[in-house]
Amino acid sequence: MSKKLKWGVLGGGGDSLIGVLHRVAASMFDSYQLTGAVFNPDHEKSIEFANEIGIPTDRIYPDFDTMVDAELSLPESERIQVFSVLTPNFLHFPMAKKLLESGFHVICEKPMTMNYQEALELKEIQKKKNNVFALTHTYTGYPMVRQMKKMIAEGAIGEVQKVDAQYYQGWINPIIHDPKLRATTWRLDPEKSGISCCMGDIGVHAYQMLEYMTGIEIRSVLADLNYLYEDNKMDIDGTVLLRLGDQAKGVLRASQIATAEENNFSVAVFGREGTLKWEQENPNYLYLLKDGKPIQTLKPGNIYNSALSLDGTKLPPGHPEGIFDAMGNIYKGVAKAIRGQDYDPAEFPGIRDGVRGMKFIETVVASHAEGNVWKKL
Amino acid sequence: MSKKLKWGVLGGGGDSLIGVLHRVAASMFDSYQLTGAVFNPDHEKSIEFANEIGIPTDRIYPDFDTMVDAELSLPESERIQVFSVLTPNFLHFPMAKKLLESGFHVICEKPMTMNYQEALELKEIQKKKNNVFALTHTYTGYPMVRQMKKMIAEGAIGEVQKVDAQYYQGWINPIIHDPKLRATTWRLDPEKSGISCCMGDIGVHAYQMLEYMTGIEIRSVLADLNYLYEDNKMDIDGTVLLRLGDQAKGVLRASQIATAEENNFSVAVFGREGTLKWEQENPNYLYLLKDGKPIQTLKPGNIYNSALSLDGTKLPPGHPEGIFDAMGNIYKGVAKAIRGQDYDPAEFPGIRDGVRGMKFIETVVASHAEGNVWKKL
Amino acid sequence: MSKKLKWGVLGGGGDSLIGVLHRVAASMFDSYQLTGAVFNPDHEKSIEFANEIGIPTDRIYPDFDTMVDAELSLPESERIQVFSVLTPNFLHFPMAKKLLESGFHVICEKPMTMNYQEALELKEIQKKKNNVFALTHTYTGYPMVRQMKKMIAEGAIGEVQKVDAQYYQGWINPIIHDPKLRATTWRLDPEKSGISCCMGDIGVHAYQMLEYMTGIEIRSVLADLNYLYEDNKMDIDGTVLLRLGDQAKGVLRASQIATAEENNFSVAVFGREGTLKWEQENPNYLYLLKDGKPIQTLKPGNIYNSALSLDGTKLPPGHPEGIFDAMGNIYKGVAKAIRGQDYDPAEFPGIRDGVRGMKFIETVVASHAEGNVWKKL
Amino acid sequence: MSKKLKWGVLGGGGDSLIGVLHRVAASMFDSYQLTGAVFNPDHEKSIEFANEIGIPTDRIYPDFDTMVDAELSLPESERIQVFSVLTPNFLHFPMAKKLLESGFHVICEKPMTMNYQEALELKEIQKKKNNVFALTHTYTGYPMVRQMKKMIAEGAIGEVQKVDAQYYQGWINPIIHDPKLRATTWRLDPEKSGISCCMGDIGVHAYQMLEYMTGIEIRSVLADLNYLYEDNKMDIDGTVLLRLGDQAKGVLRASQIATAEENNFSVAVFGREGTLKWEQENPNYLYLLKDGKPIQTLKPGNIYNSALSLDGTKLPPGHPEGIFDAMGNIYKGVAKAIRGQDYDPAEFPGIRDGVRGMKFIETVVASHAEGNVWKKL
Repeated sequence: MSKKLKWGVLGGGGDSLIGVLHRVAASMFDSYQLTGAVFNPDHEKSIEFANEIGIPTDRIYPDFDTMVDAELSLPESERIQVFSVLTPNFLHFPMAKKLLESGFHVICEKPMTMNYQEALELKEIQKKKNNVFALTHTYTGYPMVRQMKKMIAEGAIGEVQKVDAQYYQGWINPIIHDPKLRATTWRLDPEKSGISCCMGDIGVHAYQMLEYMTGIEIRSVLADLNYLYEDNKMDIDGTVLLRLGDQAKGVLRASQIATAEENNFSVAVFGREGTLKWEQENPNYLYLLKDGKPIQTLKPGNIYNSALSLDGTKLPPGHPEGIFDAMGNIYKGVAKAIRGQDYDPAEFPGIRDGVRGMKFIETVVASHAEGNVWKKL
Repeated sequence: MSKKLKWGVLGGGGDSLIGVLHRVAASMFDSYQLTGAVFNPDHEKSIEFANEIGIPTDRIYPDFDTMVDAELSLPESERIQVFSVLTPNFLHFPMAKKLLESGFHVICEKPMTMNYQEALELKEIQKKKNNVFALTHTYTGYPMVRQMKKMIAEGAIGEVQKVDAQYYQGWINPIIHDPKLRATTWRLDPEKSGISCCMGDIGVHAYQMLEYMTGIEIRSVLADLNYLYEDNKMDIDGTVLLRLGDQAKGVLRASQIATAEENNFSVAVFGREGTLKWEQENPNYLYLLKDGKPIQTLKPGNIYNSALSLDGTKLPPGHPEGIFDAMGNIYKGVAKAIRGQDYDPAEFPGIRDGVRGMKFIETVVASHAEGNVWKKL
Repeated sequence: MSKKLKWGVLGGGGDSLIGVLHRVAASMFDSYQLTGAVFNPDHEKSIEFANEIGIPTDRIYPDFDTMVDAELSLPESERIQVFSVLTPNFLHFPMAKKLLESGFHVICEKPMTMNYQEALELKEIQKKKNNVFALTHTYTGYPMVRQMKKMIAEGAIGEVQKVDAQYYQGWINPIIHDPKLRATTWRLDPEKSGISCCMGDIGVHAYQMLEYMTGIEIRSVLADLNYLYEDNKMDIDGTVLLRLGDQAKGVLRASQIATAEENNFSVAVFGREGTLKWEQENPNYLYLLKDGKPIQTLKPGNIYNSALSLDGTKLPPGHPEGIFDAMGNIYKGVAKAIRGQDYDPAEFPGIRDGVRGMKFIETVVASHAEGNVWKKL
Repeated sequence: MSKKLKWGVLGGGGDSLIGVLHRVAASMFDSYQLTGAVFNPDHEKSIEFANEIGIPTDRIYPDFDTMVDAELSLPESERIQVFSVLTPNFLHFPMAKKLLESGFHVICEKPMTMNYQEALELKEIQKKKNNVFALTHTYTGYPMVRQMKKMIAEGAIGEVQKVDAQYYQGWINPIIHDPKLRATTWRLDPEKSGISCCMGDIGVHAYQMLEYMTGIEIRSVLADLNYLYEDNKMDIDGTVLLRLGDQAKGVLRASQIATAEENNFSVAVFGREGTLKWEQENPNYLYLLKDGKPIQTLKPGNIYNSALSLDGTKLPPGHPEGIFDAMGNIYKGVAKAIRGQDYDPAEFPGIRDGVRGMKFIETVVASHAEGNVWKKL
């Protein structure tokens, strides 16, 4: 009946962590069949990896262009339907572009493109071709993130009047203070990584999440970034003041020098009637605060959750699911979209998130460079 | 190179939660290929389900015996190598028995058998055939459970002098107080569920975990079970006093009438030099207490963890993994064992855990029935 | 108008921790004036201490009997009204007895007496004289403990069907394993400390709390105590099975060898309609679990709390109060009782708690000694 | 020997919460004797309150000036030595000024003055007279705050490279959205409350704490305040970007519209070698994060704490102390200073904290008013 989707993978071979994440996610709801791939620019390594993970090697192609041509030459019923783009950042845009233009559906790792201009271009293509395009802001797949979004939409906390997002890591701390390391780490090289490190890598997650959860556009930003050393070209920490609507303000804090923090991403949204809070490292708890009431802690899988949230839980309450399950939920949503089934647009982020994210990154860097001034988004 | 293992599944079709858990786990390290199955006693439903999850139907068999015969008739290189037994409890033993006798490896859901006698029989068979047999006490797959086991073994808390395990759920509470419901729920019917509900279902998890973590055998027990109503034939709550060695004592508490508790399983082991504590609902934290020192909280993926623990983490620190990942780790270990690779016996529970578990259940029920007296295990 | 109560103190001099606790508590609501004392059997030290804490020395008496005589010889308007008995355990009973017989009100540290017989005797005296007698089970003064009691009484969790109390400490761990230390520590000497260490010191707190919170009498107990060494005469760890009513069962766990635990006292009460949980080390949180609802976390000072609870909070929500404040609340209640003001009997434990506590200790020790058998309370 | 200090109180009568806090704190270490007071501008009410709290009324004065004159006319040995100023904000400065000029020691509630100019003036006076002056930033009295300060000073986290403080409350939320309420609440009236509500009331606590803990001066600020309504003259929310030294940056977030938050004040300091975090609502935990190490949680009273921290704990580990105890520690330090005993300057905040605090408030408001620009402190 519902045959598995034929799925192609670009990148993600060898020890790639992102590769495992996507493969497990794809398998989670029995909807994807890994059919072809270019795991690695080195064809031999690609084939080796295919053997390692136990898939047939006949559709392991030597390179991306060959792959697209070969697949297009197949009858539609055999052809790969959807590609996951897990290659280095600078390849996201050209690959996604060509895939969309060739009529494939695309699941793309973040960042979608290297700059805002490319993002706009991709948006135009997607609009024209109308294929499914998903951007893997993985955290939006957590059941309690989805629940928070739905509760805000349904008025559980009233009109939003303040937001506060934090994304603190410490991984760059041992690198940044070492002149050699900071000169050679690819993440700190603008040629390879774009114009921003901290904001481009994690700040944008927090930004996307705020807009995802509130459904409100952030209108303008004032950023103070930190580079710590003059010879360091990339922000590795920063705080961004936010304006959301007529009245609502907020702040977004991101850092990669928050020493020994692992992946401490948290979001608080304050409404006139209540507050909602969520933390990525303890993703199965959602906190609702209301004046004069006990704090309410919501957990996944319980009947009080929204359909969107419940759709993202596979086991009964009390069985913790994690980041793989969050990504699995995104793949589940994408499969529905490709198959033309009913789905909630909140099931996966898309081209709009990518466009706005690139705009955010460029604006934040400009705001800082121009002396910490307000910039429209 | 390392081809995927040919994997057969018995049960786990339709909306089965256990089915999803095993399929995702099996896919997690690219080591298993779902090759054949009897998902359901109704062959049509089995085929329907195979279509639903997008696998070929040629090796979806009408029944277990046919499946075994058919697979045995295949050349070894094509034959299913390992079966997962996810059928109703009373079928675990006969299926596992026949599979082992026929030379297959077996991954078996808990409970391994319906009674201790069967467990001993299975043990004998497995000893003779020497095939891999894994019993899915899933929680042992959590990285911090493995870390706790290794730390105890390495003396981090010194000689164990006290243990305390809790497994509290509330799901049977709405059933038990309703005379009709409690008369008709299969879990409370000894014919279908064996001699114990609470101890057989969750108490045995806590028991297995205590022996797994400490490496010490529990020698004797004194149980006080609760049935709440005279017409209820199954324990739905109980406390078990434990004696571990010459000096160590402990307590195991399990309940299904701990109203609104979800899956609140926690373990504390107190040694002469320190204490270790872990909670299933927040599985990514392990607490180490030492006299005169700050509390230490360990998290998965960090370099201070043991190899066994690190082997069970797929992403860097700060990316929460959950119960699916725990089961995935068990499947990973089983795959190593089947392939003859090096592995740590702590990677998956086996026949011995099943034998001891059945013994525990029978002894606990007897201890209560005889008036809360000490019984040897 | 409401003059301060004239307050006498027995014991609690020098570095006594209990002395500070009572003095601060007494000062908390401006209701007590420290008027006279025997801080120490050594009169000089007593006077020295009075100077140290800045109170007049004219009513610092050489010994207890002299003090009672002297105070009785004063006109009633000048006479000390209420005594706090903070002396070593074996003096609690004779002092409390004489004080009650002489017409004084008494605030007595725990344990009330050295045995059950003395407790009954004291009860008779108090009944006859009808003076105020408070036993400082300090934890009952916490606002969220009071709230839990009231909520259970008002049916928030329905009929109680299970209780579970834990009181884990580790302080005796470094002592018990050292033959010299365990032979010389006064707390392990039955002559000085009565028949029980762990149960007498902390188990009884847990027992009292369970009856305080539920309002239900524990009918019988089965105890398994741990002495660890043959030459050790006192229990330093133990688990007690409990029977509460016709159906309700429970467990009480106490230990002083729970290595590096500080004062980890927690109580869970499971009712047919919900569960309430509280922990002493985080006393300002009370957890209410109901089927199909988010977990509710109650905090002190909020309007949803009962009058009894709110009466025990001095500042607005979010300003943590602690153990001194809990004791202060007990002193506040005692002051009301002495002054003949309205008060809730739940504001302080009394003679009945002491009688039942001594009965509990003796019964638990007997249950263990007779082979872990059920004993009526 | 060490007689109690003669202590006078200005304000704090009736239902004053601050009054209770100071009286309990003063009593905590037996160092203060409440000797005289003007509790209330209405003399009768003052006397009534004195009776209510059971102190003699002979030194309950009709007004402040009379009190100062009368006390000065007494021989020094009988004279009040130290005054606590608990009056409405606009009276803090004139009273503190006169008291210092008259040779009294002063404990002053926050804010020290109504503006920076007054603060400077008070500083001059105090410098000249050299009396003890304490400003009750109460939270600095918590043992784990003191511990955090000492650990930073001793290099536990290396050079500070980032700070982040949050002070979120929700109390003004129900007021601010009601035009009548927001027009009539004294806290929102600049005449009565100075130029800032949120920053003046709580932001300044966070600011003082950051400088207290790090020992580093904040050099410049860029503030974005929120007033929500045009007819509202006072900030009720804001975020402040911070620059600390050559490299260190930070952020201070304060709000009174963080709906249903109670008193959620937290501080994180990130150093090159580690991170320290503390939260006011759970004040007895201090978190130390180091790369590649388990998280360490420190608790009060343990031997690993500094002398300064241990001096602020009255009971053994595991007995939670709270805000009253924190204030008690400040009073303890002040008593030592007045008596000429050794003390650590970190035991209580003083005039410098007040001067810098007023400067902070004025600068932050100016930064916002001038268009969210950087201003030097």
